[in-house]
Amino acid sequence: MRIAVLGTGMVGQAIAGKLDELGHEVSVGTRDPGATTARTEPDGYGNPPLRDWLAARPRVRLATFADAAAGAELVVNATSGGASLEVLESAGAANLAGKVIVDIANPLDFSHGMPPTLFVKDTDSLAERIQRAFPESTVVKALNMVNATVMVDPASVGGGDHSTFISGDDVGAKQVVTGLLKSFGHTDIIDLGDISTARGSEMMLAIWLRLYAALGTPAFAFKIVR
Amino acid sequence: MRIAVLGTGMVGQAIAGKLDELGHEVSVGTRDPGATTARTEPDGYGNPPLRDWLAARPRVRLATFADAAAGAELVVNATSGGASLEVLESAGAANLAGKVIVDIANPLDFSHGMPPTLFVKDTDSLAERIQRAFPESTVVKALNMVNATVMVDPASVGGGDHSTFISGDDVGAKQVVTGLLKSFGHTDIIDLGDISTARGSEMMLAIWLRLYAALGTPAFAFKIVR
Repeated sequence: MRIAVLGTGMVGQAIAGKLDELGHEVSVGTRDPGATTARTEPDGYGNPPLRDWLAARPRVRLATFADAAAGAELVVNATSGGASLEVLESAGAANLAGKVIVDIANPLDFSHGMPPTLFVKDTDSLAERIQRAFPESTVVKALNMVNATVMVDPASVGGGDHSTFISGDDVGAKQVVTGLLKSFGHTDIIDLGDISTARGSEMMLAIWLRLYAALGTPAFAFKIVR
Repeated sequence: MRIAVLGTGMVGQAIAGKLDELGHEVSVGTRDPGATTARTEPDGYGNPPLRDWLAARPRVRLATFADAAAGAELVVNATSGGASLEVLESAGAANLAGKVIVDIANPLDFSHGMPPTLFVKDTDSLAERIQRAFPESTVVKALNMVNATVMVDPASVGGGDHSTFISGDDVGAKQVVTGLLKSFGHTDIIDLGDISTARGSEMMLAIWLRLYAALGTPAFAFKIVR
C-alpha cells in the first residue's frame, strides 16, 4: 500500500520503518524536507538526525505533508497531539479526502508540567476533532496507548500476548487498520466502536504515564483478560 | 481486622461479604439502618433487599456511617463517587482519624447521559479530594477499575492472571491494603505511587466503560504485560 506517515519523531520513525520493512511504499511527511535533512545533530530527545535514518532506508521518501498525503492511499498521523490538526491542515483536506487517517497521536498538554495532562478528554477526543475537521476522510484511532516500540513490535513485551484497540465510524476503514495491526504482530485487536470511543483509549494515557513512572520502563502493554 | 464498609450497593455487598468470609469483623455503614432493613423490595438495579443479604451473613453488623466507622480499624469507601465526600462527612472526621480509608469509588457523572463522564479528572481525583478532606486519615485508592465480582474474586477472569493498582501517600497504609488485596486473590499489585496517581486509575473508567459495551460483559480485567 502507498502510505504517508506524518511526523518524523520517534513514533513516526518506528511506524514508517516498520511499514517499509513490510514492503509498503512509504512517504514520511514533514513541514520542510530541506530543513529536516539539513539537520546533522540529534534532536532534543537524543534521536539521531533523520538524514541518517533515511540513509538506512533508501525506499522511504521524505516529502512535505501535502506531497506525502497526496500520493498516499492511507495516512498515519504520527505527530504530537497539539500539532495534529495544524499538520493535517497543511497536508490538505483534498489530499486526505476519501482516505483512511490512522490517528495514533495523543492530546498531551505539557504546559502544566509533568506528567502531562490531556487538552481534550472525556466529552471529546483528538480523534473526534480530526474526524470533524476532515469529514471526507475516515479516521481510525489506534496504537496510542503503547510506546513506539510496542506499537510496531508487540512481541517485544510478553511475547505479544496483549491487547490493542481501534475506534472509528467506518467499518471498512477499521478492517484496513486491523489488517495493518495484524501485520505488525498484534493478535488481540478489540474494536471499541465508533470514533467517540477513542475517548477511552486516549484517557488511558493517564494510567500509562503513572505505570511508566512506577515500572521504570515504557516497555509494557495492556492485556484485556476475559 | 475490624472493618467498616460504607455503602450497601453491589460493590459494598461484594466487599463486605468477602471480608466476612475471610473472618474479618465487618460493619456495613448506611445512612439509616432502620430504613435500609425495612426495605423488602429489590433496589433499582434489581439487587435483593439488604435484609436478605444480612440474614445470610449473621456476623455482619449494619450500622450508621458514624457507628460503623467509629468501631473500625479500616474503612472502605464503597459509595457512589458523587456521594462519597458527604458520606465520609457523615461518618465523621474524628471516627476516621488515624485510620486507613480504602477508596474504591469512581467519580462518575451520569448527568450527561451514557456512558457517564468523570466529575473530577486529570488535574485532580476523587481519592485526592478525600485525602484533602480527611488529612488525619490515610487514603489508599484501590480496585476501582474492575467490577465488584472481579474485585473480590479475581480468579473469576483469566484464573486471576491480571493486575491491580494501589495509590496512596502512606507506605504503611499501602502495605495493609496490599495484604487485603492478596487475601482476595490478587497477585500482581502495582504500587503506582502517591495519591495523585489515582488520577490514572480513575481515568481508566473511560476505557472500562467502552470495553464493557464492546465486549458485552463486565467480566474482564487489565493485565499489565511487561
